[in-house]
Amino acid sequence: MNPGPFTLDPQLDADTIAIGDLPLCRVLLNDDANYPWLILVPRRPGLTELIDLGEADRATLMREIAQVSAALKVHTGCDKLNVAALGNVVAQLHVHIIARFRTDAAWPNPVWGTAKRFPHEKAARETLIAALRGALQIPAPQS
Amino acid sequence: MNPGPFTLDPQLDADTIAIGDLPLCRVLLNDDANYPWLILVPRRPGLTELIDLGEADRATLMREIAQVSAALKVHTGCDKLNVAALGNVVAQLHVHIIARFRTDAAWPNPVWGTAKRFPHEKAARETLIAALRGALQIPAPQS
Repeated sequence: MNPGPFTLDPQLDADTIAIGDLPLCRVLLNDDANYPWLILVPRRPGLTELIDLGEADRATLMREIAQVSAALKVHTGCDKLNVAALGNVVAQLHVHIIARFRTDAAWPNPVWGTAKRFPHEKAARETLIAALRGALQIPAPQS
Repeated sequence: MNPGPFTLDPQLDADTIAIGDLPLCRVLLNDDANYPWLILVPRRPGLTELIDLGEADRATLMREIAQVSAALKVHTGCDKLNVAALGNVVAQLHVHIIARFRTDAAWPNPVWGTAKRFPHEKAARETLIAALRGALQIPAPQS
């Protein structure tokens, strides 16, 4: 069965702001001001697991994870990166890349289900997005 | 500073049983019978982040993640795989690959900090380890 064109999962769409597209992945900012938290979504339809991606796409995904991780680490000066593909709630394949600090709301626990989410203040959010677009060399999405 | 030869973190060593070595990673069974839960540790000294690995090693890591994920999914028939590099508590770079079921003790939440861990029953553990060694075509470690 042809899964049709790629469309972003509605829950991911509701929770995030699009930073832009790398060759494989859409890069999203999770609008939770507790943490600098990015999400990569491979723009391929019908995927739920990493192993649903073909081998070449998996290699590209690893390169994009590394590129986004490095940009996030440089920009935030975080103590640790957390990288995870879970997908128990939102089935569409997506990879979390989260900048963690020893002082953050969940440390040293994982972020899911701990601190109540709250949105970024608009100016701070725009500054973060602009900095990441610059670091990743991706233009703003057409929308 | 030369970090010296690879040695497994003592906490990882205490919590797991070695399944064997792939070209890059040591494959460990986390001895928590709540979930079929494997851990990959790249056998390189002094790493804490995915981006501490060189590009070629990152590509190998992705191949080994895919290989182990596929074996775990086939063997367990799980509903979902969770793949994560967190490292907030144990600093040594390690990647969790966990077989999740809609009926398991933490579903749909992540596994960390939820159900109290308890060890595998010995016979079931040996069966699981033997099956995974077969699927991954890796011999038992010399110890």
